[in-house]
Amino acid sequence: MNPITIIFEPDGKRSCFKTGIRLFDAAKELGVEVRSECGGDGTCGKCKIIVVNGSNLLNGLTDQEKGLLTQREIGDKYRLSCQTKIKEKRDSSTCIITAFIPSESRLGERRIQVKGMEQPVPLNPAIKKVHLVLDKPTISNPVADDERLLTKLQDTTGLVNIKISYETSKTLSTTLRQANWDITVTIWDNKKIIDVEAGDATNDNYGAAIDIGTSKIVGYLVNLNSGEIVSAGMLENPQIQYGEDVLSRIAHAIQSLDNQDEIRRLVVNGINTVLESACWEIPWLGMNKIHEVTIVGNTAMTHLFLGIYPKFLSLSPFTPAVKGSADVKAKETGLRVHPEGNVHVLPCVAGYVGADAVADVMATGIHQKDEMSLLVDVGTNGEVFLGNKKELLSCSCAAGPAFEGAQIKYGMKAVTGAIEKVKIDPETFDAKYETIGKRKPIGLCGSAMVDTVAELLKTGIISTRGRFSQETIKTRRLITPEEEGTGSKSYVVAWKDETAINNDITVSTKDISEIQLAKSALHTGCAILMQKKGVTEKDIDRVYIAGAFGNYLNPENAKTIGLIPDIPTEKISFVGNTALAGAKMALTSRTIRELADKLSKEIRYVELMTEENFKREFIASIMLPHKDLNKYPSVQKYIRNKS
Amino acid sequence: MNPITIIFEPDGKRSCFKTGIRLFDAAKELGVEVRSECGGDGTCGKCKIIVVNGSNLLNGLTDQEKGLLTQREIGDKYRLSCQTKIKEKRDSSTCIITAFIPSESRLGERRIQVKGMEQPVPLNPAIKKVHLVLDKPTISNPVADDERLLTKLQDTTGLVNIKISYETSKTLSTTLRQANWDITVTIWDNKKIIDVEAGDATNDNYGAAIDIGTSKIVGYLVNLNSGEIVSAGMLENPQIQYGEDVLSRIAHAIQSLDNQDEIRRLVVNGINTVLESACWEIPWLGMNKIHEVTIVGNTAMTHLFLGIYPKFLSLSPFTPAVKGSADVKAKETGLRVHPEGNVHVLPCVAGYVGADAVADVMATGIHQKDEMSLLVDVGTNGEVFLGNKKELLSCSCAAGPAFEGAQIKYGMKAVTGAIEKVKIDPETFDAKYETIGKRKPIGLCGSAMVDTVAELLKTGIISTRGRFSQETIKTRRLITPEEEGTGSKSYVVAWKDETAINNDITVSTKDISEIQLAKSALHTGCAILMQKKGVTEKDIDRVYIAGAFGNYLNPENAKTIGLIPDIPTEKISFVGNTALAGAKMALTSRTIRELADKLSKEIRYVELMTEENFKREFIASIMLPHKDLNKYPSVQKYIRNKS
Repeated sequence: MNPITIIFEPDGKRSCFKTGIRLFDAAKELGVEVRSECGGDGTCGKCKIIVVNGSNLLNGLTDQEKGLLTQREIGDKYRLSCQTKIKEKRDSSTCIITAFIPSESRLGERRIQVKGMEQPVPLNPAIKKVHLVLDKPTISNPVADDERLLTKLQDTTGLVNIKISYETSKTLSTTLRQANWDITVTIWDNKKIIDVEAGDATNDNYGAAIDIGTSKIVGYLVNLNSGEIVSAGMLENPQIQYGEDVLSRIAHAIQSLDNQDEIRRLVVNGINTVLESACWEIPWLGMNKIHEVTIVGNTAMTHLFLGIYPKFLSLSPFTPAVKGSADVKAKETGLRVHPEGNVHVLPCVAGYVGADAVADVMATGIHQKDEMSLLVDVGTNGEVFLGNKKELLSCSCAAGPAFEGAQIKYGMKAVTGAIEKVKIDPETFDAKYETIGKRKPIGLCGSAMVDTVAELLKTGIISTRGRFSQETIKTRRLITPEEEGTGSKSYVVAWKDETAINNDITVSTKDISEIQLAKSALHTGCAILMQKKGVTEKDIDRVYIAGAFGNYLNPENAKTIGLIPDIPTEKISFVGNTALAGAKMALTSRTIRELADKLSKEIRYVELMTEENFKREFIASIMLPHKDLNKYPSVQKYIRNKS
Repeated sequence: MNPITIIFEPDGKRSCFKTGIRLFDAAKELGVEVRSECGGDGTCGKCKIIVVNGSNLLNGLTDQEKGLLTQREIGDKYRLSCQTKIKEKRDSSTCIITAFIPSESRLGERRIQVKGMEQPVPLNPAIKKVHLVLDKPTISNPVADDERLLTKLQDTTGLVNIKISYETSKTLSTTLRQANWDITVTIWDNKKIIDVEAGDATNDNYGAAIDIGTSKIVGYLVNLNSGEIVSAGMLENPQIQYGEDVLSRIAHAIQSLDNQDEIRRLVVNGINTVLESACWEIPWLGMNKIHEVTIVGNTAMTHLFLGIYPKFLSLSPFTPAVKGSADVKAKETGLRVHPEGNVHVLPCVAGYVGADAVADVMATGIHQKDEMSLLVDVGTNGEVFLGNKKELLSCSCAAGPAFEGAQIKYGMKAVTGAIEKVKIDPETFDAKYETIGKRKPIGLCGSAMVDTVAELLKTGIISTRGRFSQETIKTRRLITPEEEGTGSKSYVVAWKDETAINNDITVSTKDISEIQLAKSALHTGCAILMQKKGVTEKDIDRVYIAGAFGNYLNPENAKTIGLIPDIPTEKISFVGNTALAGAKMALTSRTIRELADKLSKEIRYVELMTEENFKREFIASIMLPHKDLNKYPSVQKYIRNKS
């Protein structure tokens, strides 16, 4: 008997297994994490999976499952993975089982920020569904199908001047007759009917919000009748094969039209995967039910997604080809949602202040507040906003990918096994750390790098220049370039035998320099905007830290290294993925789209390169926390080793 | 040496020819008529052709050509066909010559009506071209490409809220830079930029108007800056292979999606051929310069063109799927004009009162006149309008294709060799006739059928029932069924030895019946609308006869057979192809499109089938001119043979 392939979605991990194996154990073998409290005894009911294909290859429901699963779950093909095994006798020619691990059964193995602060918005989506029952045509009432439909729509809703989309009109006559004239129309933007379904389908009203990050794509499925998120999805941006940073990807894209199209298809397919995995969670929700998608991302990402030639984003003066928002038919983008659905790409501010940054502003609401706000979105390319409802300034800071683990020897993303918090004992100089998923560590994520540099500085192990003070500090953890093998002095955060990589996990002078450059870029952005606006740290009422690693960053340590200005911690809010939150707001409200278009035009973009203070400020900001320690009164007292 | 294929455009006739043959003679062999006054001696300069492909297979310019062609003509690849021959020595691998016969070299071999009456309209096309010179972006002015363009456009024209079409935006950044920021934008409907060209291209502003007839497609190329027609094109509707009438074509289309798409592609390619042949005449005008096409046609034709499922047009109550006007991107329709160009399909009134009929109304202006107008568009499906600026009634009459020559033994279309006028001597009963192109006759076109039936009636050869009175009339021209071979008595219009078909050209009782049925359908439409409106012949101020055979119809004879009501001839206007004229008006004026949408909704459609007088009136109208001769006082005096 042939072995059976089991595929675990949404990760897509797969392998062949023999008769008798439990899906619980198959998952474990493949490293697919499935929640369980009882260890697979069939008593906790936590290891739920959905068997999408191949259920005829599996044993029947056990008594434990009948007791622990609801009728609805059983109807939706839920099983407990510890109770489900490949059965002995099989009369089927299929040999593939597809099992989906729903989010409630997954371990928190990836700590990618999806949720973000958002402002409440009145529900006013561009997609509306209306149920209509039409009179049938007769010889004495031979009114045309479109006129019959539009007249009824007007009588029911008052909507006038509605068009029927070309594709919809092609099959309108049969759709109406097959539905026996009882239909639901989907109207976009009070302008166009983009779908006609049989019966009352008004409850099935869904849209999606997507944030195309340089490193990951995250998305929500949203019920457009309630504005509620029904599920979320996430995927590493598949374009990453052409470089971690946007410049490498643009360089690849502009080599040929084929390249440009390939890199476009990569992100389009990535979004499709995110949406499909989000749809998996709602068994009755197919991709075809999604009638609108809102998209944010940095300017390079939105250009690449739309297939807009991106070359000039990578050349001074870095002008976008398209700044305004775009509404494109889903079919034309390649997204596999309803083909007549609309894809709304939000507008950007500049080549390096993208639609994601506009979304940050809307989600934090800094454009409508009296108080002076500083908003920092930390990423490979950081964006900074400063202002209030009267005026907002923005700039972009080339922070580089150091906070995301790149260019740091033991740097890594915030995934299972990453050290996320570090503390150094000021007496023994020993390190304590915590890892994501409580595993043996395999590297350091961004927040741990900030912690480590701050702790090294506070304990005097490094100077304000970021250099190790090996002469005065005596600890085994300080190792020489020769010992470490990187050519620079290092501090050992985790000893070889504690780790899962059979190597010391260290932070070197070079790593610290990378962090210094990154934090200097962000700080310079803040400082220049503050100078432009004529405000000091005291005038700032609130600081918003957005971006993936936001919530896990220690704000005291962020100030200690000078990543952000010295503003009281109680004024600092970590707001999470406000880009996605802003995209969701735009999905549920047409007013928000108008706001985005307005902000895109009104936010004042400051080009740092042309600021005369830029170089001086950048160099001053490389010091930890800053060359001018008076700017960091709250940090000053910790600094042991001024240089 | 291989023989060479010569293709003569726009007819597309082709064959293989040997070295040395003159294109003049090749054309003659293929029956392609090329004008010539000198008979091919190279002295008249009338036999001009344009050599599109394969000029390297031909001899060089002769002295005669150098003397008779202008420099411009020589630059545009004109030759004289009598001087052009396939040369002996050829070093090319191509073996095809494509020669285009420009309209000035064609004989008037086809008398298809293209021109029609039209109302003057202020020039206000949906397509506008604007020349702009933009500032280049710099680091101190890094404004995005789209914003830079739209701001300049607003400053120059005052236009706001303009979008850039998705396809245009994809390549915008390179287009602007390659044009060195000196560009011409094409704006559709004051809403969307659909093209950006380098330099000042404002003079190249073209659109096309198309009338898709059941039997032929006719079109104009129009300069949208001046509103002037620059050329015209015409083609038999290639769908004709699936039947002369719309019902056969619908029956074919609804058999499968493939069939529907095939029949759609036939008409789309037909329109492409019409436009290409119109473009041929203007050497500098490529299809890509056409940014808008307006389309009229009967409802079945517009449905088939758009790929809208047409089934229910053929089933009672004959409801159109789409009555409203449509704007579809050219690329989506398959028309090979500028892919981002717009195709505007005008609205219809009902399943059998199409956009062509709405165009008839606009071109004659009957909707804006105080006088009571009767408009009859004669065709396989006749449309009748009655009313004035207060109210217009419309109906559709299934006249059948008899006036276009179908179902008539010697019937034919109005092309070279067709008898177009007939007179019968009341004493000798002999016939005189005129043919199109002054050739030996090969058949009778619609106007000749009307003439013949009217003359037969006036001379008493047939009765008001349409029966031959062989007893009282003595002439060789009346032949028995046995002599004629059709099973019905006949009148010989042209003797065998006068014709080009080696057969008598006759009109039989059966032919006369077909004409009676056709004219009865049209008359019934007029009569019912007059009853509905409560008007009589005296109340009608003007009659407009539209349609292809309009101008060549003898109005007295049309009244004699009762095709139209008995209204003084001075009140009758032949208005030609008003459908195409209306399409052209809509092309040059957005106001006219609004008018069309309004008329489509406001014109009152009368369904003849549900009128209680319909059957009675139809039967009474079969008589020549009518059962109630009091309705035809001006005709009554001619009638010799009342029955």
